[in-house]
Amino acid sequence: MSKLLKAGERFDHLFQYNLEIIQSVEVFSFSLDAILLADFARLPQHNRANILDLCAGNGAVTLMLSPQTKSKIYGLELQERLVDMANRSVEHNQLCEKVRMIQDDLKNAGQYFKRDSLDIITCNPPYFTLKNGTKRNPNPHLEIARHELHTDLNEVLEISSSLLKTNGKLFMVHRPDRLVEVIERMANHQIIPKRLRFVYPKKSKDANILLIEGIKNGKKEGLKILAPLFVIDDQGNYLPEVRSIIYGNYQDQAKK
Amino acid sequence: MSKLLKAGERFDHLFQYNLEIIQSVEVFSFSLDAILLADFARLPQHNRANILDLCAGNGAVTLMLSPQTKSKIYGLELQERLVDMANRSVEHNQLCEKVRMIQDDLKNAGQYFKRDSLDIITCNPPYFTLKNGTKRNPNPHLEIARHELHTDLNEVLEISSSLLKTNGKLFMVHRPDRLVEVIERMANHQIIPKRLRFVYPKKSKDANILLIEGIKNGKKEGLKILAPLFVIDDQGNYLPEVRSIIYGNYQDQAKK
Repeated sequence: MSKLLKAGERFDHLFQYNLEIIQSVEVFSFSLDAILLADFARLPQHNRANILDLCAGNGAVTLMLSPQTKSKIYGLELQERLVDMANRSVEHNQLCEKVRMIQDDLKNAGQYFKRDSLDIITCNPPYFTLKNGTKRNPNPHLEIARHELHTDLNEVLEISSSLLKTNGKLFMVHRPDRLVEVIERMANHQIIPKRLRFVYPKKSKDANILLIEGIKNGKKEGLKILAPLFVIDDQGNYLPEVRSIIYGNYQDQAKK
Repeated sequence: MSKLLKAGERFDHLFQYNLEIIQSVEVFSFSLDAILLADFARLPQHNRANILDLCAGNGAVTLMLSPQTKSKIYGLELQERLVDMANRSVEHNQLCEKVRMIQDDLKNAGQYFKRDSLDIITCNPPYFTLKNGTKRNPNPHLEIARHELHTDLNEVLEISSSLLKTNGKLFMVHRPDRLVEVIERMANHQIIPKRLRFVYPKKSKDANILLIEGIKNGKKEGLKILAPLFVIDDQGNYLPEVRSIIYGNYQDQAKK
């Protein structure tokens, strides 16, 4: 076992980006949502952009963004245990010069970044509200990552809006059943939706993942609903676009 | 030529519903949007529902709803010429007992229907705002039907909300690029989105039709993004679901 891994941890290989990321079933594992968010985000390629991944978890999205730009990327995450995993993944992938994790509550993001200074924010926030009757996760690490215990949609958007430049972009993944709230709260914080993509587990099912791009102080015209993305076929195999998002050209190269 | 037709008019056969509807390229022709709206709407089957089709045009949606319920259906349309076409279609299809057209401005809908009285409203409103730079239609009939000249999204939703009962349903078709405005204005008028379906001209294109169901004073939870609908394949042929929506079992029956 690599000396970088702690008990219960493993490396997951992200073939498209040629990254190995430390995962832990007990603490936190990134999932398809994170991979789709990193794919959905559009980053400037130059080295002068200010880029922040909020609710960064074990740094999966933060790391997956790195091959897409020459700019430095920051990841902000509350949970020390996850930042520790992310830092070891950054080290393992030799990205210490390019990816920097910050352990703090996003309420304090203003201590690290100036207002109106960021070009890009990505965010895979906790999806679930704390309403009565919501099934909570007994694992405290997973509960914080999935439920709006320490932050919520409104705060994520408020902070994103305050940190983004005018025309800066937010890329977020969320649940389609909260679409109305996402749109209303974005509007409250001057983030104008520009691109939406719905992800469907199968062709005949309702969507279960929402990808949304918003622009701070953007024009209200020109929202696009992108072609839908279907994850698996009737046999349970990944469909070609998802396979390509996960594996890149890895499978093709392996065949050569 | 049938004595029911005027110059420039023709009958279009809606096979799924076995209806013949008077169309006119010069005045008004219903299109796929109307057929998809009638298919998307879910009506109570019993004979006690109060059902209104707003912005009814030549009555295509109004008529297509009629086989779906035992209740009477009203269609409200501003343009006399279109109501005249619709009335002749109603007569031609022997539906005078079941479908009734009203010629008036929707601002006056309260003269025909009580507040909080309707179970169902359907609406295929004008899609285009009157902002500077928008290309207007030189044909006055088509301009009124397509541009927000005599009514607009906000008024349609305000009137719908005032006429619907609590838990009454609005089924509307609109353009996806106005999704944010549709959702915000529905919220302003206490209509809660419950089902959304995006229609894509082809599999790899952006959506170009939005179908939305809202419930007056409904609960805010439980929005569903239904499986997407693709219209044509790469060869320009209708895909099976759309073919079925347009033709019903007609093609299958014709083969027998």
